[in-house]
Amino acid sequence: MPKIVDHDQRRRDLVLATRRIIVRQGLSGATMRDIAAEAGFANGVIKTYFGAKSDLLAATYLDVFEATNRRVEESTAGLRGMAALRAFVGEVLPVTEETHEEARVVLSYLAEVAQNPDHARTTAVTMELWEGWIVAWLSEAREDGSLRAEVDVAREADVLLTYLLGAQTMAIVGGGRFDFAGFRAQLDYGLGRLETRAPGA
Amino acid sequence: MPKIVDHDQRRRDLVLATRRIIVRQGLSGATMRDIAAEAGFANGVIKTYFGAKSDLLAATYLDVFEATNRRVEESTAGLRGMAALRAFVGEVLPVTEETHEEARVVLSYLAEVAQNPDHARTTAVTMELWEGWIVAWLSEAREDGSLRAEVDVAREADVLLTYLLGAQTMAIVGGGRFDFAGFRAQLDYGLGRLETRAPGA
Repeated sequence: MPKIVDHDQRRRDLVLATRRIIVRQGLSGATMRDIAAEAGFANGVIKTYFGAKSDLLAATYLDVFEATNRRVEESTAGLRGMAALRAFVGEVLPVTEETHEEARVVLSYLAEVAQNPDHARTTAVTMELWEGWIVAWLSEAREDGSLRAEVDVAREADVLLTYLLGAQTMAIVGGGRFDFAGFRAQLDYGLGRLETRAPGA
Repeated sequence: MPKIVDHDQRRRDLVLATRRIIVRQGLSGATMRDIAAEAGFANGVIKTYFGAKSDLLAATYLDVFEATNRRVEESTAGLRGMAALRAFVGEVLPVTEETHEEARVVLSYLAEVAQNPDHARTTAVTMELWEGWIVAWLSEAREDGSLRAEVDVAREADVLLTYLLGAQTMAIVGGGRFDFAGFRAQLDYGLGRLETRAPGA
């Protein structure tokens, strides 16, 4: 009887192996053979699923993106406006061990993207999804009267998205002030500056 | 008579060759031999100056950083406070062909840094230099009465630095809205939100 192979599971095993290698040692010195070994597969298997390291890296990035989005979905459930935006930013900023690992995957991937226009388009699509969410939450905040008059929703969404992408990098290279506590303080400060002052505050 | 070799010039030729390769095709597929050839040197020469691709990449990043700082020095000469900060941000944001090329070098380098703690420390030092400038200009702006009361100088410097690093990435992956005009509009909007309203505005 032929062995039944769960292709989705194998693909997933290879993505998780890639992630572990990025976090442990970086991908630049790792070969496809190393990644297959990390996943517990023979070297030949990997080519069935991924043609090149850059494809594996893109799949690992998308895996991180989807994991983030699942956390965002949970955190923002039942929320709207500024409360939803605050929950979203809290899931994306590298303020936990998990999101810090994710930042390393994102950074490795972005460097690859800089060289590969196809992957740049994939990333633009993921960025547009987040931009859409940010615009929707800021628009709700405006309806709720909780957004300062001078905040321009579309422009603010561009600025915030750019900041969030920068945070992925600063978590790695920014030094001591860009630790979990530092980013949380930036989050409170930055979002606080969008909001109308609460009565009596 | 022995040939007199200008070592600084050779080092510089290799850095410029690395930059051209990053902009043209990306560094990941290029060998040390390719870089030597691009600079017009025999393969053996390169090892005298740089032990590994990552060292060349770090030198190329520092070259971009210094070029940016020379432009900043010119643009901010005789300025203080918000005017100096605006000039600085205008030189760092990828709003010209030159700064867009620089963004690709920075992005390639940052991915390398994610894997190499020594390089991460180098980057932290460059970031601290900029942070110091931003804090000084914002403090002048406060003295000049041109900073809104709710702006926290230290926190704002962290947020702005993170945004500027994110802009390097968004220029590459962000899609249509993150073009020269888009970043200029973000700059006007973001810095405008720090300032007290001009009388009569």
